[in-house]
Amino acid sequence: MPAEREDRLIETLFARHSADGDNVLIGPGDDAALLRCPPEEQLLITTDTLNEGVHFPAGTPAHSVGHRALAVSLSDLAAMAARPLWAVVTLSVPVADEDWLGGFAEGLYALADVHGVRVVGGDFVRGPLSITVTAHGSAREEAVLRRDGAGAGDGIWVSGFLGDAAAGLEVLKQRLEVNSLPLGVGALLPRPSSPFRRAGTPSDPEGHPESSEEALVHRFCYPQPRIELGRRLSGIATACMDLSDGLLTDLPRLMRKSGLQGRVEAENLPISRALRDFAGLDDSRRLALAGGDDYELCFAVPEGNEDRLKTLPDELQLTRIGDVYVGEGLVLTRGGQPWEPPDSGFRHFS
Amino acid sequence: MPAEREDRLIETLFARHSADGDNVLIGPGDDAALLRCPPEEQLLITTDTLNEGVHFPAGTPAHSVGHRALAVSLSDLAAMAARPLWAVVTLSVPVADEDWLGGFAEGLYALADVHGVRVVGGDFVRGPLSITVTAHGSAREEAVLRRDGAGAGDGIWVSGFLGDAAAGLEVLKQRLEVNSLPLGVGALLPRPSSPFRRAGTPSDPEGHPESSEEALVHRFCYPQPRIELGRRLSGIATACMDLSDGLLTDLPRLMRKSGLQGRVEAENLPISRALRDFAGLDDSRRLALAGGDDYELCFAVPEGNEDRLKTLPDELQLTRIGDVYVGEGLVLTRGGQPWEPPDSGFRHFS
Repeated sequence: MPAEREDRLIETLFARHSADGDNVLIGPGDDAALLRCPPEEQLLITTDTLNEGVHFPAGTPAHSVGHRALAVSLSDLAAMAARPLWAVVTLSVPVADEDWLGGFAEGLYALADVHGVRVVGGDFVRGPLSITVTAHGSAREEAVLRRDGAGAGDGIWVSGFLGDAAAGLEVLKQRLEVNSLPLGVGALLPRPSSPFRRAGTPSDPEGHPESSEEALVHRFCYPQPRIELGRRLSGIATACMDLSDGLLTDLPRLMRKSGLQGRVEAENLPISRALRDFAGLDDSRRLALAGGDDYELCFAVPEGNEDRLKTLPDELQLTRIGDVYVGEGLVLTRGGQPWEPPDSGFRHFS
Repeated sequence: MPAEREDRLIETLFARHSADGDNVLIGPGDDAALLRCPPEEQLLITTDTLNEGVHFPAGTPAHSVGHRALAVSLSDLAAMAARPLWAVVTLSVPVADEDWLGGFAEGLYALADVHGVRVVGGDFVRGPLSITVTAHGSAREEAVLRRDGAGAGDGIWVSGFLGDAAAGLEVLKQRLEVNSLPLGVGALLPRPSSPFRRAGTPSDPEGHPESSEEALVHRFCYPQPRIELGRRLSGIATACMDLSDGLLTDLPRLMRKSGLQGRVEAENLPISRALRDFAGLDDSRRLALAGGDDYELCFAVPEGNEDRLKTLPDELQLTRIGDVYVGEGLVLTRGGQPWEPPDSGFRHFS
């Protein structure tokens, strides 16, 4: 596109947060941003790419895409107990649709404002729809939570509910496919019946499937980085990570880093009412184990620190789902007995 | 791809630079990298995305793709007079071809090692081939070169030769197209005649077109970020930027930031012997003005500081191409008279 139009769009997108004389000395519009690192603290950096058709379906509302692109990187900072500071954003789009770009920027900046993140630079290029956010935060070195500190005997905990986002993604995909047939990508109104509701799965007798579906789609579209929780877990948890690819994929990574084995009790998985209403308990457990995109925190806490967890606000909704043992890999139990979830193709990995 | 294979590939790609107890406290493999900012200096951050088919042609050798992805971000740091420190890299690939990934990593790390850059994290995702590098450097605030400091009466200078990379890209594209017909993407052996060599354009009577073409392709594939030059220009230049989109696109950006007008004398454009041999003088000038991807520095120097430029090593190859005036936009002259380059569609922009 012409350089001047591109420059103007870049300004619209990336120059909302100009330099303010505080820790941003040069913001967007020069070759690089110039920042003042907080004294006495160390810098944390994380980067994530979201591709259309891989990390979100084609037709996902632009506002959600902007939110999610920043949220997934802030979630990594949360898992390290960092205070978020700055982000740089690269946006690749096939065409420069100003409405889409406006929605994207609204979603991105709304979340940035919630967490006090300054967008200090970016790049705007032509190509398949893709966003990369590099987020920066700070923390004192000794306050940082890592993946490798879990100890045998620690409890394994998660925040919030698991599986909601994976179910929400399925609903969203089906709505977008239906919409794309006669109407093109647009309003997400007609809702097909759930792909999870099979014969024999009882539906909620009170019948609020639409509000459950809405709640699940919202959980996929608007993950909330657990920044406050991460900072509060510093000094309580021995290891921490965020759940982006799902518990069955992510937890073994933490266990590998810590050189130990995790055992997770399926009956203890935190399942939301919305998910249970939508998918039934068995499928809910499967989604809570294998589904990604929840961006909750998963962390290890020694028994001696559990009392301190109880001082945290109830709305952080923490659940002990298992325990750390000497060994390797991940073992699932149900009612205390070794267990393989049905239909998941899951085998103990170790 | 399976999580374990993906984790292994990430380790191969991004974990070559592990934490070393110096300024990298946690390297790749956790949710975020943990770094120690240099005391007494400020942080510089820049991010760039390169998409296949947009920023480099399909079939560009993986080694070059790895080099260029880092080079374009380091070039931004060079333009701000920063010392490079760290990079994070996201790589999106349609398939995980280990040979390709190995070549990419070689190219990336070879350049990182030249400049002492540590690759401290990354993301590896499925999707169209695309790379985003976020590079971090440091400098004392007062030493940083910006775009907005040029003054009326300053000379406009560039490093190196202009236009080579744009010509090299054309040669590379044509070779790749020829190769893709019967052979698929692979060795770059057969060389078609130049798209720029028209009837009436004299070729080099000594006849080294192949070595000229090689030199030009090399200039596209292996741009050299002018880190050392940028640091030396601190305190000499009043404004600086790197040339990524071409002089006609980039210089007006610097002039706009400085609120002044640039005048560039076409006869003073630095044209390499390779480019002149390949394209003839007229097309060479056109490429030097409109072609991108050279990643040379363009900067403004007050007359009183010109003597200090002469103390810089000759191999930095600095050329005064014009002057800064009160006004706006960019004006081209040839032999001192207002001039429009033929066939470029160029009109004075202001």
